[in-house]
Amino acid sequence: MAQNLFGQIDPPQRLLMGPGPVNAHPRVLRAMAADMLGQFDPEMTAYMNETMALYRRVFMTENQWTFLIDGTARAGIEAALVSLVEPGAKLLIIRAGRFGLLLSEIAQRIGAEICTLDLPWGEVATLEQIESALIEHKPQVMACIHGDTSTTMAQPLEGVGALCRKYGVLSYADATATLGGMAVATDAWGIDVVSGGLQKCMGGPPGSAPITISDHAAKYIMSRRHVEAGIRASDTLDGSRPRISSNYFDLAMVMDYWSEKRLNHHTEATTMLYGAREAARIMLEEGLEARFDRHKAASNAVVAGVRALGLNVFGSDAYRMTNVTGIWIPEGINGENVRTRMREDFGIEIGTAFGPLAGKVWRIGAMGYNAVKHKVLLTLGALEACLAAEGYKVSRGAGVDAALAEYS
Amino acid sequence: MAQNLFGQIDPPQRLLMGPGPVNAHPRVLRAMAADMLGQFDPEMTAYMNETMALYRRVFMTENQWTFLIDGTARAGIEAALVSLVEPGAKLLIIRAGRFGLLLSEIAQRIGAEICTLDLPWGEVATLEQIESALIEHKPQVMACIHGDTSTTMAQPLEGVGALCRKYGVLSYADATATLGGMAVATDAWGIDVVSGGLQKCMGGPPGSAPITISDHAAKYIMSRRHVEAGIRASDTLDGSRPRISSNYFDLAMVMDYWSEKRLNHHTEATTMLYGAREAARIMLEEGLEARFDRHKAASNAVVAGVRALGLNVFGSDAYRMTNVTGIWIPEGINGENVRTRMREDFGIEIGTAFGPLAGKVWRIGAMGYNAVKHKVLLTLGALEACLAAEGYKVSRGAGVDAALAEYS
Repeated sequence: MAQNLFGQIDPPQRLLMGPGPVNAHPRVLRAMAADMLGQFDPEMTAYMNETMALYRRVFMTENQWTFLIDGTARAGIEAALVSLVEPGAKLLIIRAGRFGLLLSEIAQRIGAEICTLDLPWGEVATLEQIESALIEHKPQVMACIHGDTSTTMAQPLEGVGALCRKYGVLSYADATATLGGMAVATDAWGIDVVSGGLQKCMGGPPGSAPITISDHAAKYIMSRRHVEAGIRASDTLDGSRPRISSNYFDLAMVMDYWSEKRLNHHTEATTMLYGAREAARIMLEEGLEARFDRHKAASNAVVAGVRALGLNVFGSDAYRMTNVTGIWIPEGINGENVRTRMREDFGIEIGTAFGPLAGKVWRIGAMGYNAVKHKVLLTLGALEACLAAEGYKVSRGAGVDAALAEYS
Repeated sequence: MAQNLFGQIDPPQRLLMGPGPVNAHPRVLRAMAADMLGQFDPEMTAYMNETMALYRRVFMTENQWTFLIDGTARAGIEAALVSLVEPGAKLLIIRAGRFGLLLSEIAQRIGAEICTLDLPWGEVATLEQIESALIEHKPQVMACIHGDTSTTMAQPLEGVGALCRKYGVLSYADATATLGGMAVATDAWGIDVVSGGLQKCMGGPPGSAPITISDHAAKYIMSRRHVEAGIRASDTLDGSRPRISSNYFDLAMVMDYWSEKRLNHHTEATTMLYGAREAARIMLEEGLEARFDRHKAASNAVVAGVRALGLNVFGSDAYRMTNVTGIWIPEGINGENVRTRMREDFGIEIGTAFGPLAGKVWRIGAMGYNAVKHKVLLTLGALEACLAAEGYKVSRGAGVDAALAEYS
């Protein structure tokens, strides 16, 4: 065969300082090199149970139903919404960025009746605003984004779960961009369902979505349970409520698969499970507080550095995520030229932006394995050089020095 | 923290001779150990394009739209059906096993009007039966399973695509269990959409679903296109037909992401892409015909071996898949006891069965990296010993000898 088989996988070594994916921890990648097990092998199901136990601690929860969805972070979001929201049910969505819009997008396809609490990109909702919206709209479900990387803002969630329970509303939060980097205090917040991803602060590759579900939400989801014809037993009891409108994302069936029943659904993505399990072990070895502090220190250094370069940081200091920083592109500078120089000359990737911020804002992430001093310093040094090459007047060395000072 | 972090990933070395997942080729696992790239890095998009080119050859097609769905094989099935079948559209499903039932299950949730061509588990449909069903039901879409591992039968698909086109029907086939092991002749068959998985004959881990889409089907799917609000440009043109009822599985958006437009959708699962790309390279290096012959030889040896042990093979020799063999569990023998002995004493996994065949049939797979002589011989030798230990009268050595003879 003369046809091209291309070369081996051999990516250039990049330092990924954008909003994710970021470089994976080498231990995660090594764990993923282990060979397969049968899906019902006792060794495999033990790994599944251990992964559940580890992610309970990652999500700061006692929820029994804490496991993985086999797909990228977006798969976790859709699994949560399609299982929590019946066609025609009223869903309140807090929207202040691209991922808030994504929740609407998914919910429209489910056939939900959508009501929204809309804020300008970059703002966050107050508890009062949320309570007013709950009172006004009387939704069955509330959905929001914890950290929306499109705006780099973190929605405070303390008290939000309690508010939702007060009004009998099931709650969902997407923590894709914060899990592993900021506290995702599922139980303290009282949020019913929280989902995440591996490829940001967890320090793993994209392709697995950890999720946790309160007993209260699990009971509701089980009321929509409908076991597949090909594997149902004669005594199978289905739930009384409308069937979940996706098979792959049917959390009732996924829970049956992750339960001691081990009712076959998909074939668990073994390699991604190995990686997710190792990413959680690394996080818990470090300790949650130490890890959150490490992210905060890196983020503070990024902010100090870019400000010392005369750049303006996007959004309010009070609500910024501590793992990704938005930076206004200075007037007269072509943002994409700077990004290209960063990649081509320094092997460093920083992020662009979406929607109303496209072309106006860069995003620098310091996430997971990359939320460390030397990577922040190297990024600031490179950014300074690229800005200078594009004709931006910059005080050379100022960014690196300010970040060093912030660290010490 | 005194809490248990469990040990490193360190699975026992199993020989997986069931219906999948099977052992992954070590080259695939090594490729997956490479670090991340940014999702729009030119090196990453080049890998994506190369993966498309490689899977065109795997699917024996010229289809431009040949790429990966980020999820297990079941995710590929749901992406195909939810994108091809509008709520209320008429879908003809050929059902002769568990995975035919799964197609119904998914289609019910989409809200399709389902009509079926039902056959007893283990039979296949003739072209005449399919044509009659097309004439009788006048569906918009026809869906079927190429190799249904629940019955070990392969539905012949030659002529099926042409028949569907004759009646103006879009066609879908699931080739999860055959891709990489038997010819999946997408263009020769004229099937519009075919999806597969990695964890069977492709010799990779579960978690990625290759899919191929004809231009004809892509045009239809694009007529249902609806770009997300968070990333839509002012000149975005949506399609005129009803929106696809899943965001994650919206093939129109996934095509935009894999196209030169690179319109952001999910974040491609980098590690699984590396693995899928390497699995295809290994297959194409071997050559399609050589690979199919290797599977057939292994399957023939399994059949010869188990028959020499006095066991009966499930289903018709004319239609059996060449990578998994169903074997009737002999009377008086507890099938699960034999499987446990196989695993615990020999480290070998063979499969159980579902639905009407549960407890009656074992399934021995010889797939991908495991479709080789020595693994077949080791499995037959172990099976004989386990049968003998369970009190089955067996002529010792007969299975191995028969398989060796079949190979020579």
